[in-house]
Amino acid sequence: MPKRFRRRVPELGEGGPILLTERRRQRTETLGSVLRSIASILILGTAVLMMLQRLGFNLAPLLASASVVGVAVGFGAQNIVKDFLAGVFMLLEDQYGVGDVIDVGQAKGTVEAVSLRITRLRDINGAVWYVRNGEITRVGNESQGWARAVLDIPVAYTADVSRVREVLRETAVRMWEDEAYHGAVILEEPEVWGVEALSTDSVVMRVVVKTVPLKQWEVARELRVRVKQALDEEGFAVAAAAT
Amino acid sequence: MPKRFRRRVPELGEGGPILLTERRRQRTETLGSVLRSIASILILGTAVLMMLQRLGFNLAPLLASASVVGVAVGFGAQNIVKDFLAGVFMLLEDQYGVGDVIDVGQAKGTVEAVSLRITRLRDINGAVWYVRNGEITRVGNESQGWARAVLDIPVAYTADVSRVREVLRETAVRMWEDEAYHGAVILEEPEVWGVEALSTDSVVMRVVVKTVPLKQWEVARELRVRVKQALDEEGFAVAAAAT
Amino acid sequence: MPKRFRRRVPELGEGGPILLTERRRQRTETLGSVLRSIASILILGTAVLMMLQRLGFNLAPLLASASVVGVAVGFGAQNIVKDFLAGVFMLLEDQYGVGDVIDVGQAKGTVEAVSLRITRLRDINGAVWYVRNGEITRVGNESQGWARAVLDIPVAYTADVSRVREVLRETAVRMWEDEAYHGAVILEEPEVWGVEALSTDSVVMRVVVKTVPLKQWEVARELRVRVKQALDEEGFAVAAAAT
Amino acid sequence: MPKRFRRRVPELGEGGPILLTERRRQRTETLGSVLRSIASILILGTAVLMMLQRLGFNLAPLLASASVVGVAVGFGAQNIVKDFLAGVFMLLEDQYGVGDVIDVGQAKGTVEAVSLRITRLRDINGAVWYVRNGEITRVGNESQGWARAVLDIPVAYTADVSRVREVLRETAVRMWEDEAYHGAVILEEPEVWGVEALSTDSVVMRVVVKTVPLKQWEVARELRVRVKQALDEEGFAVAAAAT
Amino acid sequence: MPKRFRRRVPELGEGGPILLTERRRQRTETLGSVLRSIASILILGTAVLMMLQRLGFNLAPLLASASVVGVAVGFGAQNIVKDFLAGVFMLLEDQYGVGDVIDVGQAKGTVEAVSLRITRLRDINGAVWYVRNGEITRVGNESQGWARAVLDIPVAYTADVSRVREVLRETAVRMWEDEAYHGAVILEEPEVWGVEALSTDSVVMRVVVKTVPLKQWEVARELRVRVKQALDEEGFAVAAAAT
Amino acid sequence: MPKRFRRRVPELGEGGPILLTERRRQRTETLGSVLRSIASILILGTAVLMMLQRLGFNLAPLLASASVVGVAVGFGAQNIVKDFLAGVFMLLEDQYGVGDVIDVGQAKGTVEAVSLRITRLRDINGAVWYVRNGEITRVGNESQGWARAVLDIPVAYTADVSRVREVLRETAVRMWEDEAYHGAVILEEPEVWGVEALSTDSVVMRVVVKTVPLKQWEVARELRVRVKQALDEEGFAVAAAAT
Amino acid sequence: MPKRFRRRVPELGEGGPILLTERRRQRTETLGSVLRSIASILILGTAVLMMLQRLGFNLAPLLASASVVGVAVGFGAQNIVKDFLAGVFMLLEDQYGVGDVIDVGQAKGTVEAVSLRITRLRDINGAVWYVRNGEITRVGNESQGWARAVLDIPVAYTADVSRVREVLRETAVRMWEDEAYHGAVILEEPEVWGVEALSTDSVVMRVVVKTVPLKQWEVARELRVRVKQALDEEGFAVAAAAT
Repeated sequence: MPKRFRRRVPELGEGGPILLTERRRQRTETLGSVLRSIASILILGTAVLMMLQRLGFNLAPLLASASVVGVAVGFGAQNIVKDFLAGVFMLLEDQYGVGDVIDVGQAKGTVEAVSLRITRLRDINGAVWYVRNGEITRVGNESQGWARAVLDIPVAYTADVSRVREVLRETAVRMWEDEAYHGAVILEEPEVWGVEALSTDSVVMRVVVKTVPLKQWEVARELRVRVKQALDEEGFAVAAAAT
Repeated sequence: MPKRFRRRVPELGEGGPILLTERRRQRTETLGSVLRSIASILILGTAVLMMLQRLGFNLAPLLASASVVGVAVGFGAQNIVKDFLAGVFMLLEDQYGVGDVIDVGQAKGTVEAVSLRITRLRDINGAVWYVRNGEITRVGNESQGWARAVLDIPVAYTADVSRVREVLRETAVRMWEDEAYHGAVILEEPEVWGVEALSTDSVVMRVVVKTVPLKQWEVARELRVRVKQALDEEGFAVAAAAT
Repeated sequence: MPKRFRRRVPELGEGGPILLTERRRQRTETLGSVLRSIASILILGTAVLMMLQRLGFNLAPLLASASVVGVAVGFGAQNIVKDFLAGVFMLLEDQYGVGDVIDVGQAKGTVEAVSLRITRLRDINGAVWYVRNGEITRVGNESQGWARAVLDIPVAYTADVSRVREVLRETAVRMWEDEAYHGAVILEEPEVWGVEALSTDSVVMRVVVKTVPLKQWEVARELRVRVKQALDEEGFAVAAAAT
Repeated sequence: MPKRFRRRVPELGEGGPILLTERRRQRTETLGSVLRSIASILILGTAVLMMLQRLGFNLAPLLASASVVGVAVGFGAQNIVKDFLAGVFMLLEDQYGVGDVIDVGQAKGTVEAVSLRITRLRDINGAVWYVRNGEITRVGNESQGWARAVLDIPVAYTADVSRVREVLRETAVRMWEDEAYHGAVILEEPEVWGVEALSTDSVVMRVVVKTVPLKQWEVARELRVRVKQALDEEGFAVAAAAT
Repeated sequence: MPKRFRRRVPELGEGGPILLTERRRQRTETLGSVLRSIASILILGTAVLMMLQRLGFNLAPLLASASVVGVAVGFGAQNIVKDFLAGVFMLLEDQYGVGDVIDVGQAKGTVEAVSLRITRLRDINGAVWYVRNGEITRVGNESQGWARAVLDIPVAYTADVSRVREVLRETAVRMWEDEAYHGAVILEEPEVWGVEALSTDSVVMRVVVKTVPLKQWEVARELRVRVKQALDEEGFAVAAAAT
Repeated sequence: MPKRFRRRVPELGEGGPILLTERRRQRTETLGSVLRSIASILILGTAVLMMLQRLGFNLAPLLASASVVGVAVGFGAQNIVKDFLAGVFMLLEDQYGVGDVIDVGQAKGTVEAVSLRITRLRDINGAVWYVRNGEITRVGNESQGWARAVLDIPVAYTADVSRVREVLRETAVRMWEDEAYHGAVILEEPEVWGVEALSTDSVVMRVVVKTVPLKQWEVARELRVRVKQALDEEGFAVAAAAT
Repeated sequence: MPKRFRRRVPELGEGGPILLTERRRQRTETLGSVLRSIASILILGTAVLMMLQRLGFNLAPLLASASVVGVAVGFGAQNIVKDFLAGVFMLLEDQYGVGDVIDVGQAKGTVEAVSLRITRLRDINGAVWYVRNGEITRVGNESQGWARAVLDIPVAYTADVSRVREVLRETAVRMWEDEAYHGAVILEEPEVWGVEALSTDSVVMRVVVKTVPLKQWEVARELRVRVKQALDEEGFAVAAAAT
């Protein structure tokens, strides 16, 4: 099992990012230890068997009698092998590392440790999840390169769509120009994509903001407050969402 | 693992289309490297085994003793093989390439990289998805040839159906004739297909617009605004959808 | 992979039907190429192996050492075989061809290409679906022989059932007698099957119209408009459906 | 593939019942052709192999080299075998024949053709379904011996239960005594089983009518109209169903 | 396939119970025929093979060449074997017999025939269900020993709970003392278990009556009518159920 | 199949607990008979085969020819083996015995009989369930050591939370001090855990009572009545639950 | 099966934490006994087989005849092997121990015993769950390091968001400063993360409190009461949640 490192992930209340070189070192070390283990097992196993044969032990009955047990063990162990192989490829492809926030379908949270057989996550409620690598068919990594906060704001059907659009754009851009967010948190000028849905009660407008990874939730929360205030000032109310 | 290219996909805020010749070059390169790898493994493996035999090593005990492990490893590794074979066929059939927006069931987004074992997508929230090729039973590619924006507009039951139809058609056609869209975005004259559903409160009219790939969402958003304005002017209100 | 043909399917806005002889030619060609490929692989493979043996190469170690890999590859490849065999039988049984509108469970749309391993569909939104033949357990083909438009019209509980029945029948029959539909689109005199459901608010009447394949949606849309007008004239309102 | 026969099924608007002797003939023919095919394959195969051996061809390398391919093909082909075996047993047990209305879980409709590998159905919308026999784990055949129309009629909570019961019984019995239905369609005197559910708004009464197969839907529709009229006359309204 | 017997099941409108000795005879006969078949197949098969060998036929090529086919057939046939073995154990354990009302998950109804491979049921709508024994993972038999009618009666929240309890108990006991039910239908004095759920609108009381098998539905229907009348007389209304 | 014992379970209206020594005797007996059976099968089988060989019968053709059938039977029979092995471990680990109320996922009820292959349950409606031991992945046994009645009582949002808490505690404690329950039924002083949920309409309070196994439902029913009366007296109404 | 220890888990009303050294001792003991068992089985088995061979018994027929049975037993037993291997790795990785509160998907509760094949849990209702280790694909352990109470409080849309935020923060911090909670229960100063959702009726505010493991539910309950009181005092009402 590889050594375990932690890094602070603000959203989940823990550590800062570990250095990239550190992460590469981790992966190299893990894979190195894997190769060493496989090599020693193969060499030792063959040596033992050849020695036994030299000494005149007849291995045939042992091996033959092992057939029923062998099938059971072989099939029973395939999950372990599957987990390890999935772990090896996952490391080779660098799908995620300690400190990333990932969604593996069976659990979602911050990676606390990556071993060949299992991945250890900590979810938002503080529960620790042990997920077998072989059971992970797809991984969603929310901490690579950039993230995007997507807000769908429903306004009353009677509201002036182009004015609402303008208000939303101004609010988002003003937040972007805010020193606390500019560049360090929000990466690009926010956009208002337009009318996502139309219902008898409401018009749903979509606003998107491209952010630094793991900051999308914080940005969305802040923007929600600002949008609410801006709409309130203009006399537009948030409407019931078009379900 | 093949080299990774990116191209801009407007909807998801990234790059423009890569050239077709470039894409063909990628596929050829990937498949070439695959064949090279297989050939070298086969030749090397046989060579090693024949050498060992020449030197008088008895391989039987090694191979025999490998049976239990072999079953476990063989079965455990079948997923890896499945992923690679699926990747090879997927490349041969050119199902998707870097920059396409695809739906593989487990995730939906812009393809960022295609390797033999996994496909890497980036979804609308900026999360990066690693999906094993063998787990993909069907692929929906939204960037091939053309796309279609389908809008179901519910209007009040009491509205004059033929007049609503006319308004919708005119609005859609006027948008088509708009220079910003004509030809470059909207490929054909939009059509109003008619009454999709009938309920106690509403009549649902369907409007369809054939567009350039990846522009269908933008067109739908713009058309929603225009339809709303046109209906408002005529005094028809959008009704609650017939669920 | 077989050649790909397209034919216009009005509902989805494309081409006309290809000729039956053309379709038969396609199938024959595809199956012929399959047989040729299998034959050449078998003959070549055996030839190579016999030659190697003549030249004194001992194949035993190669084949034996292939056992672990063999299990993994054999199992990993079973999906590919499954897909091909399913494709062969599907072609032999002529379940569907290019231009048909089919529902394969994982996707629904117009068939754009049929190969031995995958079927390519284009759905109503213009997305192209690649579905592996082996994953298709049942196919629903909506373009064989005839189709039926089934309309369930809910009317107010207080309405005179026999009069409503009469109005519905007359409306449907008048549409059938319309030159634009008679024979070329609607195949038989439409029928009103009667009261499908009874609730506190409504009585649901079922009207059925037998049409030429792929015209059922168009007919249903037109009939909905006509039924609405007829009921409005008689003073019967469409009621909330009995859920 | 066996010859295909159709018989009229009134509910779905097609043909009349085929004769029982005809159906037996079909089954015998199908099974006979199966046995013939198996016998010829076995005899031919053995003959070819023995001939090759006489002529001095060494089959060992061919067969040995076939092992990896063999596993893949063997496993890939198991579905085909499963389908055929399921088809044979289904025919032997006479689970359904052409013209029956069956529910195989994946589709529901009138059987149009029965072959060893697939069953072809036509559903109410005219779509043709191809279902692999091996995927059918249970079959519901609605055309054997008799059928039963089951109506759950909700009446207002305040209604006199015994009077409602009486009205329902009389209405159903009068329909039974109707010449158009007596004997030829409705097999036995209809029964009112009593109060199925009790809610704050309604009392749900169950009426059951035993009919000739495939006539249950027609009888249910007619009975719904008659029950509505009878209840209206007595001043009992159909209530909201107790969900 | 074993002979098929029917017995009347009042609920589903058919036959009376078959004698226990008859049922034992059926099972013995079925299992006897199974053993006879297996014995003859084994003896015949071995005889044929030994004869062929005596006559100098070399079976090796036949058997060897059968390997690919063998895997496919072996795997494809495992479902058939599974069905038969499940059938044998099901008969040995006497889980159900002809005339029982059972729930096998995939269908629910009266058993019409039990064979080694499939079980034939007839459901309440008269549809005949063929269910493969191997697909049945659990069986619920509603016709063994005794059954229990469980009624959950919601009354208004403001109602006097102890009085309601008393009324329910009296009503159920009076029904029990009714000659038509005492002993022959209802086995024990009915019980009122008490308050099952508490909501803002209602208090749900549970009444249970132990009955002869297959009479539970009839008893529940009758008791519902009586409870309604008793509550109406006392001025307690059935309330909306606490969902 | 082991002998079957019953014990009275008050909730489900049957028997009293069987003695622990009796239960241990049952398990010993069952496992003893299992070992005896396995031993005799192994000894007999080997004896027969060795005898046949001594007498000069060549078993090779029989065994070889059994390969196709062997695969089918072997795979088909694996479920039976799985069931038996699961049964053996379940008995060794004493997961449940006759008279326990268990939830095996596929059914829930009182255990009536435990055999190596199946477990027989009787549910609350009197239906008898036969569940294969191999299909049981987890067992919930509600009759071991102690049980807990958990009541979530919603009160109006405006109610005084600390007063409601006090009333609930007093009611539960008074019931605990009741001679009919003290010690023999309720094991510990009941606790009020506090506010489980908060909604616009209600505050949900949780009360828990630790009871003797199988008495939790009875205690919950009685406590519901008492809580209702206590709240009514204090003028607090049970509110709509916060869904 | 390992010895079983209990420790008090306050939430579920039982024991205190066992010492870490004690837990390590348990794991060492369990794994030691496993290794001992495997070693003795291997040595004994080989010894017996070699002895038999020395004595001239021919094992070939026994082993050969075991093939059909062997496949069945081998496959049937694979689940047992899977369970044991999963148990071994789970112990090696120390995923959970006696006294932890875990969620294994099929059940959730306090661990009462950990053996190699099964894990025994006790849920909140007192039901004991036996879960096979091989069926556990992921484990959520709520008792490692720390836990977090997450409260989503909906307030009226018209409420002053920044004031509400202040009130929530103050309430949470005052609870943290409370001696009964400071440090021993609540680990860090609570935070108000902000607006999680925005609807026509409400603004949902999220408050999070980091606590000692297994205390999160108690803290959440207490905080709910305090938040309600604080909001009531300020005149803000808890609103309907934005669903």
